Amino acid sequence: MSQEAVNGVPCRGKVLTVENMNPNVKRVEYAVRGPIVQRAVQIEKELREGVKKPFTEVIKANIGDAQAMGQRPITFFRQVLALCSYPELLEDNKFPEDAKQRARRILDACGGHSIGAYSASQGIECIRQDVARYIEKRDGGISSSPDNIYLSTGASDAIVTILKLLVCGEGRDRTGVMISIPQYPLYSAALADLAAVQINYYLDEDNCWSLNVAELKRALNEAKQHCKPRVLCIINPGNPTGQVQSRQCIEDVIRFAKEEHLFLMADEVYQDNVYAEGCKFHSFKKVLFEMGPEYSSTVEMASFHSTSKCYMGECGFRGGYMEVINMDPEVKAQLTKLVSVRLCPPVPGQALLDLVVNPPQPDEPSYTSFMKERTAVLAALAEKARLTEEIFNTVPGITCNPVQGAMYTFPRITLPPKAIDKAKAEGKVPDMFYCMKLLEEEGICLVPGSGFGQKDGTFHFRMTILPPTEKLKVVLQKIRDFHLRFTNEFS
Amino acid sequence: MSQEAVNGVPCRGKVLTVENMNPNVKRVEYAVRGPIVQRAVQIEKELREGVKKPFTEVIKANIGDAQAMGQRPITFFRQVLALCSYPELLEDNKFPEDAKQRARRILDACGGHSIGAYSASQGIECIRQDVARYIEKRDGGISSSPDNIYLSTGASDAIVTILKLLVCGEGRDRTGVMISIPQYPLYSAALADLAAVQINYYLDEDNCWSLNVAELKRALNEAKQHCKPRVLCIINPGNPTGQVQSRQCIEDVIRFAKEEHLFLMADEVYQDNVYAEGCKFHSFKKVLFEMGPEYSSTVEMASFHSTSKCYMGECGFRGGYMEVINMDPEVKAQLTKLVSVRLCPPVPGQALLDLVVNPPQPDEPSYTSFMKERTAVLAALAEKARLTEEIFNTVPGITCNPVQGAMYTFPRITLPPKAIDKAKAEGKVPDMFYCMKLLEEEGICLVPGSGFGQKDGTFHFRMTILPPTEKLKVVLQKIRDFHLRFTNEFS
Repeated sequence: MSQEAVNGVPCRGKVLTVENMNPNVKRVEYAVRGPIVQRAVQIEKELREGVKKPFTEVIKANIGDAQAMGQRPITFFRQVLALCSYPELLEDNKFPEDAKQRARRILDACGGHSIGAYSASQGIECIRQDVARYIEKRDGGISSSPDNIYLSTGASDAIVTILKLLVCGEGRDRTGVMISIPQYPLYSAALADLAAVQINYYLDEDNCWSLNVAELKRALNEAKQHCKPRVLCIINPGNPTGQVQSRQCIEDVIRFAKEEHLFLMADEVYQDNVYAEGCKFHSFKKVLFEMGPEYSSTVEMASFHSTSKCYMGECGFRGGYMEVINMDPEVKAQLTKLVSVRLCPPVPGQALLDLVVNPPQPDEPSYTSFMKERTAVLAALAEKARLTEEIFNTVPGITCNPVQGAMYTFPRITLPPKAIDKAKAEGKVPDMFYCMKLLEEEGICLVPGSGFGQKDGTFHFRMTILPPTEKLKVVLQKIRDFHLRFTNEFS
Repeated sequence: MSQEAVNGVPCRGKVLTVENMNPNVKRVEYAVRGPIVQRAVQIEKELREGVKKPFTEVIKANIGDAQAMGQRPITFFRQVLALCSYPELLEDNKFPEDAKQRARRILDACGGHSIGAYSASQGIECIRQDVARYIEKRDGGISSSPDNIYLSTGASDAIVTILKLLVCGEGRDRTGVMISIPQYPLYSAALADLAAVQINYYLDEDNCWSLNVAELKRALNEAKQHCKPRVLCIINPGNPTGQVQSRQCIEDVIRFAKEEHLFLMADEVYQDNVYAEGCKFHSFKKVLFEMGPEYSSTVEMASFHSTSKCYMGECGFRGGYMEVINMDPEVKAQLTKLVSVRLCPPVPGQALLDLVVNPPQPDEPSYTSFMKERTAVLAALAEKARLTEEIFNTVPGITCNPVQGAMYTFPRITLPPKAIDKAKAEGKVPDMFYCMKLLEEEGICLVPGSGFGQKDGTFHFRMTILPPTEKLKVVLQKIRDFHLRFTNEFS
């Protein structure tokens, strides 16, 4: 690193440069908060400074952040959190008894009766018990043990932790991890960071982004030539693609995982976000156990959930959990040790998770208002899912699968060859060029499909369906107008 | 992984076993929550189940968790957090105006005015501004930019992130990281996880655990034979050793870092915890800038702080920040990208950090009670620091340096040769044998010195000084009695 001497003093560069830093970190990409979002933040600043634009606000439809889009938090949850934060309020008559009872129970389980104390690294025990009961109820009575539950800092934290356990080997023995394309880029980012081998399997856009086991086999067999595949990651309901897997599909995937001796990772953070008629959320755990002991006692799996999505949308609290199934006890001990290094997940997020898995019951005072709020959010999302598909499919050059679940649409866009050439000339991938132009002209921030992966030669973007209905209509109209103008400009 | 066939069906082991898992994870150790703490949790369970023990409760002096030890949270902080959690309380006359004003300001800076929204990955901008102002005030006006502040999930998160950027190379080119011995085991755990080379430099127990630059040189020169040293980590005030570095020492360390072209990591999470007369906290940043532009414009550094310690002890919220100084702009862009993958630090922890760096001012209604609470906590800690040193030094076979700062004592214990033999026969390191026996006989949970590192042939334990004064006296008395009994038993 020594450079030329200046006046006899050796002039050295930085200790840490982009040339000599961790090369794995350099390979990490995370489009959901990539260059387009950075530009969006800049534009917002320019607007505040009075710079004239063809729009008055930036609408960030790039990230699944419900409350940023105006969704109100669930009252009961926030009452309990306030009580936990400032227990003097337990004497206040304004708070309903069930909220107080929940807060007391959480505080009693905290060190020194305070959410300011560290918890056990695996999470507060009574909350893990509540999670296990929630899973049992969700899965029609299939048993769940609190010992298999690990609370986490959002689902991302748990996903990265499990991947970290699984990655080993060098060269052709390096661990390969199968991920869907399109994928949620946390996966590719984590794999780059861990220097694991990413194995792409493609979802079938023509069949509503369904997962095809023949495609899993193709991808696996190719990958076996250059790595050791060990892990299969599934996102259901799908992000960014919004599909909901059928029970049959899940069975096929589990059978495949067993045959091919793969560890299953089931990202089920959108489990309450199912809108399309005839669609239903089936947990991998439930299907696994219904397939009988040959499967339920052998297939190793981790399933992930979070407080960030569904009807509550409390992303800022970074709450989440995972359930591990059939994990080797010695590996579990290693997992417990590994999570202890970071001490514990944020306790307010743990408290919030407890409320999500143990919400007001029919005989409790907050039940009616809780159900009203919950139902309103989910009904609005269902309406917005329908609206998005409907309007996009009226635009020539945009085709959009039904948004069966989750919070996103991932429509395919036809780009004129001249636009593709122009993008290339500017050194941009074509859908980034498209999205950047949309941002500059209409103030709408989407994420280019290339950030999630897509079949070569196809182009998409991801948009959340989260803006309030009236605003969503405006957004869809603006994208429609832009798309027609764009197509015209480059034809 | 194929094993023998049973009835013709090939019987395969687990996909993920302790043999084939990530070997770096296996090397991770974190004694602060290691086997002794697991046994303590078991004993607590046994006590609840009515098992007779020679004590009625386990006292966990293993971890710096003030609120678990009965310390009350700062009222003002919790009022603002309750207001942020449940903004309907902003209409409540029970809350002081300054608490409401803080809450409004934080909420205005949140997406959708809610702490349930994601924040910018680097942290909420106005909070980063407050952190920068706090640092400027602390450091006598030396400027700090919000662009150099990254909020984090506790300090641990930020420390691991910076280490991750710095680690690269293979074999003799692998990055070496200098850490003090004794150290806080987050460092050794992170280095194992990253497969970096740990370079030990020993603190001088005979000189109150001071840091000696000659020892840094020795360690560095030895390490150069087998790795590429790039990083020097300092903990000041010290954990587990409780020393406070002199200004001169810090200058020497900075000079050494510059000469040897090392990136400096200054773990300053105990910056408010200074008790000994004549001791004062000097930030590395301030000393660096006072050394003139030759240093302040070249030495690369990251400094870490947290909401978990000091007078507030809010560990459960996982709040923290780091300031990076002289970091290459391209590396900073990589850092920003890397933290974006995890979306954002928990927003309640960010809000709490804002209160820590911007507490009530003399003209505000909450000032008097805030100062009263803060002063009471720090005065009690100072008294407990004094008491701990005093009582331990009356015990033959225990020698204890002054607890100048932080929250721990790390006394040296003399173990009879017979005890050492007995421990070895049981396959335990001698201080683990000692601490385990103390736990079983007295219900006191400490961490063996071997978990932090110590000179060969010496033995220590780490104990927090956090129990309430009267309980601390009992703990010290029990350890005294145990030590005498133990020495007697093995003599």
